[in-house]
Amino acid sequence: MRIIETAGVTPHRVATNDELANYMDTNDDWIRSRTGIRERHVAESETTAGMASDVARKLLQRSGKTGADINFIVVATMSPDYQTPAVANLVQAAIGADFASACDLDAACAGFVYAMDYAAGILARQPDTMGMVIGSEVLSREIDWHDRGTAVLFGDGAAGVLVEGTGDNPPSRLRSFGESGLELTAGGAANHSPFSQLPDLPPDFTMNGREIYKFATTTVASELTAFLDQNELAVADVDHFLFHQANARIIEEVGHRLGIKPEQTPINITHYGNTSAASIPLLLNDLAEAGKITRGETLLLCGFGGGLNVAQLLIKY
Amino acid sequence: MRIIETAGVTPHRVATNDELANYMDTNDDWIRSRTGIRERHVAESETTAGMASDVARKLLQRSGKTGADINFIVVATMSPDYQTPAVANLVQAAIGADFASACDLDAACAGFVYAMDYAAGILARQPDTMGMVIGSEVLSREIDWHDRGTAVLFGDGAAGVLVEGTGDNPPSRLRSFGESGLELTAGGAANHSPFSQLPDLPPDFTMNGREIYKFATTTVASELTAFLDQNELAVADVDHFLFHQANARIIEEVGHRLGIKPEQTPINITHYGNTSAASIPLLLNDLAEAGKITRGETLLLCGFGGGLNVAQLLIKY
Repeated sequence: MRIIETAGVTPHRVATNDELANYMDTNDDWIRSRTGIRERHVAESETTAGMASDVARKLLQRSGKTGADINFIVVATMSPDYQTPAVANLVQAAIGADFASACDLDAACAGFVYAMDYAAGILARQPDTMGMVIGSEVLSREIDWHDRGTAVLFGDGAAGVLVEGTGDNPPSRLRSFGESGLELTAGGAANHSPFSQLPDLPPDFTMNGREIYKFATTTVASELTAFLDQNELAVADVDHFLFHQANARIIEEVGHRLGIKPEQTPINITHYGNTSAASIPLLLNDLAEAGKITRGETLLLCGFGGGLNVAQLLIKY
Repeated sequence: MRIIETAGVTPHRVATNDELANYMDTNDDWIRSRTGIRERHVAESETTAGMASDVARKLLQRSGKTGADINFIVVATMSPDYQTPAVANLVQAAIGADFASACDLDAACAGFVYAMDYAAGILARQPDTMGMVIGSEVLSREIDWHDRGTAVLFGDGAAGVLVEGTGDNPPSRLRSFGESGLELTAGGAANHSPFSQLPDLPPDFTMNGREIYKFATTTVASELTAFLDQNELAVADVDHFLFHQANARIIEEVGHRLGIKPEQTPINITHYGNTSAASIPLLLNDLAEAGKITRGETLLLCGFGGGLNVAQLLIKY
C-alpha cells in the first residue's frame, strides 16, 4: 500500500482558549499547560460530509486522478451527519466516483488507522486498485459546551490520503479494550420508540479523564512495544511516529517511556485540538506540505482512544 | 473465507401490524400486501450492543471457541448505542476477546456485506485468523412512529457469523450511488454547538418510497447481472441468493427480472420486518438452523439500501 497524496481541510472559524472561557470556567494557561492546545477550528456551516468531500477533491487535484479512478472510499468518523447516507456515500457522489464502494467506519480516535487497515485488506485482494481513506469529524456538535473537562479538548476537521496497491502487506496491530469502553462516551443514541423502556443515552462527551490518561500513557506504551517487537524493529528504525493528537502531554509521556526522540514524534495539536479520526491524517498532511517527511521513510501510525482502542500500522511513505 | 457458525437473536417483544394501527393510520392488509411483513420485533430493554453480544456468545457456544480465539470483531450497524464506544468494543469486552480488534462499520442495509468484505480483507492478509461479523440494529429508536410510510417497515434484531481464513478470495462487488443518498435518511445528527449555524438534521427515517423502490428493483437487478457476468456465473450456478430483506415485493420483482427461481430467494421478512444490517445474517441463520442450506452451496449475499448502496459477495457455505 502506497500513499499517493495527502490532503486536509479545517473549518474557517477558530476558537481560542480565551474564547472558551466565555462558555465555562477555564483559561488559556490551564488548557495549554495540561494539553498543549491553544486553539481549535469549529464548524459553523461545515459538515462532516462537506469537509470529507473537500478533502477528496483536493486528493484528486493533487494526484491528477478523476473520480472514475477511485475504487473505494472509507471514511472514519464518530460524528457522521447521518447514520444513512454514510459520509462516504456523499463523498462518492461529490467526486463522481461512479465505480467506488463507500462506507463509514467507527473506531473513534483510532478510526483512521482502522480504516487504513481496511484499505490494506482491500488492496491485498485487489492490488491494482486505488482508493481514499479519510477521517472527518464535527465533534463540536457532540460536546457539552459547559463541561470544561471535555469541551476544551476537541476540534473539527478532516484529512485523508489517496492510496494504491503495491503487493505488500503493511503490518498492523489493532486491539480493543472494551472493558473500559464506558470511561469515554459520545453520541449516545436518542430514542423515539414508544416500545422502549430505556432512558436516552448521554448525547455529549463524557470522560473519566484520569482513567483515560492512564490508559493512553500505559497501554499505548505497552502496545507500541509489542508492535515494534512483533516486527523486530527498534525505536530508531521508525522515522516518524504519527500519534493520534489527543494531548501533547500524553505523546510526550509515551515518547519518554519508550525512549523516542522528540523529533520522531511530531505534534500539531496546538492549532487543532483533538480531532479524533482526522488527527493522524491532518498531521501527516501538515508534515507532507511542510516537506518534513520524505519518501521512503518508515512511518508508524498510532491511533488510540474511545472504545477503548489502540491501533497501529507501519507504512513506507 | 469460511463461515464456521451462524447465530441470531431478536428482542422478546413482537409488534403486529394490527398493533401499529394504534400509532398511525395503517392496517394489516395494506402492510402485508405491499411488503410481506406481518410482525416485527421491537426493543424494550434490548440494546444494539447487548444483542450483538448475545450473538457473539452464541457463536462461541456453537463453535466451541473462546473469546481468546477471536482476532477481529466487525459490527455493521446504523443504530449504534454510542458513537464511542463502538458496539464492537462492547462485544469484545462481553466475550473476553482480549486479542481482537473491534470496530463498527456503517453502510446501512448493505452493511453486513460490506463488513463481510472487510473480513475477507483481514483474512487475505492474515489467513490463520478468525473473527466475527455481526449486524445489529435497534432501528425502532430512529423511527417516527407516526409516519406510516416508514414506521411499518422496520424491525430490531441482530445476527452474525464466525468466519476463518481459508486462503481463498471471495469475489465481491460493492457500489455506492450517493447521488441519491438523501432519498433515504436516518439518524441525522443533533447539534449542541454554539458555533453552528446549521439546523439539526432529521433524527428519524425519511424516505422517498417511490425512488427507493425503483432503485431497489432496477439498480439491484443490473448490479446482480454485472456481478454474475464478472464471475462468469449463470443464475442457476448460485444455490441461494440471500437478499437484504427490505420488502418481499422487491425481492420477488428482482428475482422475476433475472429469472431466479423463488426457491433460490428465501424470504423471512414476514416475522422480522427490515432489520437493515441484521437482515442477511438473520436469514442465513434461519436457513442454517432449519437445515435449508447445506455445506458446499454457493451463496450470493446481496445487500442494498441507504447510501445508496448495492453490495454483493459470493461465498461457499
